[in-house]
Amino acid sequence: MVGNSLVGMSAEDIDKNVPIPYHYQLRELLRDEIAVGRWEVGERLPSERELCETFNLSRTTVREAIDALVNEGFLRREKGRGTFVAEPKILESLLQTPNGFTDAMLEQGYQVVTKVLRMEIVSAPRIAAEELRLKSGEPVLYIDRLRFLLNEPILLVTSCVPERICPGLVKEDLVHNSLYHLLRSKYDLKIARAKRFMEAVAANELEATLLNIEPGAPLMLIESTAYSEDGVPIEYFKARHRGDRTRFLVETYRRVIKDDSHS
Amino acid sequence: MVGNSLVGMSAEDIDKNVPIPYHYQLRELLRDEIAVGRWEVGERLPSERELCETFNLSRTTVREAIDALVNEGFLRREKGRGTFVAEPKILESLLQTPNGFTDAMLEQGYQVVTKVLRMEIVSAPRIAAEELRLKSGEPVLYIDRLRFLLNEPILLVTSCVPERICPGLVKEDLVHNSLYHLLRSKYDLKIARAKRFMEAVAANELEATLLNIEPGAPLMLIESTAYSEDGVPIEYFKARHRGDRTRFLVETYRRVIKDDSHS
Repeated sequence: MVGNSLVGMSAEDIDKNVPIPYHYQLRELLRDEIAVGRWEVGERLPSERELCETFNLSRTTVREAIDALVNEGFLRREKGRGTFVAEPKILESLLQTPNGFTDAMLEQGYQVVTKVLRMEIVSAPRIAAEELRLKSGEPVLYIDRLRFLLNEPILLVTSCVPERICPGLVKEDLVHNSLYHLLRSKYDLKIARAKRFMEAVAANELEATLLNIEPGAPLMLIESTAYSEDGVPIEYFKARHRGDRTRFLVETYRRVIKDDSHS
Repeated sequence: MVGNSLVGMSAEDIDKNVPIPYHYQLRELLRDEIAVGRWEVGERLPSERELCETFNLSRTTVREAIDALVNEGFLRREKGRGTFVAEPKILESLLQTPNGFTDAMLEQGYQVVTKVLRMEIVSAPRIAAEELRLKSGEPVLYIDRLRFLLNEPILLVTSCVPERICPGLVKEDLVHNSLYHLLRSKYDLKIARAKRFMEAVAANELEATLLNIEPGAPLMLIESTAYSEDGVPIEYFKARHRGDRTRFLVETYRRVIKDDSHS
């Protein structure tokens, strides 16, 4: 029974005494309830009417909250059928291992499908040259790939590898092999550490078209330089992950025990 | 001489043989040159006319590239004066230490200014209760803060701490003290590790107003649960960092030496 799915919730969950808009409070509330599993993936959300009644809010307010959750990828609308809880974002722990995307996703049981948009030897773009410690004009293997999970484009990535350390790689099949796999198996290049910068950016027209999202939609931009055990830079990449489909986990520990000078 | 600042660059830097829009190529090129320091912070970019001539591109194309870089925070326009290289984004290494924002920024020489928007004891919101392992309805200290760096609002953060472990904290001054400092000095609560989730999301109206950005602008959303040495959850927070002003660094090492089964 749909009505049951609001059990325990009431108009008191919306605080009328704080200067926080009601639609925002409702959105946060529903988002939290989705996060803790009140409704299952694919389950229909209670109707707008039910939400209005339960929380004593106007239709406009309820719709605004739901619109926001649809935009953020927590809910999806099906024409004439209602609003449903969407598949959760794909969790990437990529940040904490120098593994490639393919391996990181395989560990989670996802098969990555890859479309190679461009693959050629070019003079290293300035920033790649800097990161890979190449001289200006030195050749790199430049690869643009669009990567899919569950039939959706998720990630657009441009990778540069110094041509000198991977001669002939340009002829390999990057649709059915991961770059890291080829670097390991054909060139004995193993990535031991990586430095990654993350930013939230807006998708431009090209990125939006390729990733099947609206221009301006949020993307997680990751710029990474990966090194061998000996500290030699092997690969520079710039990846744009769809914000509505991915979240990233970082676990952190205090390395140095701080003194108690503050206390 | 302004003209000098395009030295070494030419129409050949824009590849006419690939299906990548010219404005996009130019934007990437300029962004890389900004990143490697061809122009200094505050320096004026060559004029649109000079860029058109050097790269043999139309005014529309050049403008589109520059607009994108302005939107992304790499350049800023001054009315009637031209386009200048903007202050770089603030680098946050917060992700890799369980330190608070104040300490992390102080280490980089930034003074954090804080505005407390809301601070009160409430029943734990569902997701906070879950993360802090509280029973439904148990009280938490709920704090909404807007935080400024260099006179700009940078970060909007909602923190929850179980009231039971910090009785009386609600009366403390969080404008002049960091939360972590108070937890340490008054309650001997030290954060030893944290679990953080990162997502790129779009700012809603409220967030946009508070952070002085456009609605829909990209934000880095960080959800964090922090624990004591004994694994007791101390704090849950949800922070929204302006995408145009912040980037995050994560350094990663291979912890387990993988076997060579792939090779």
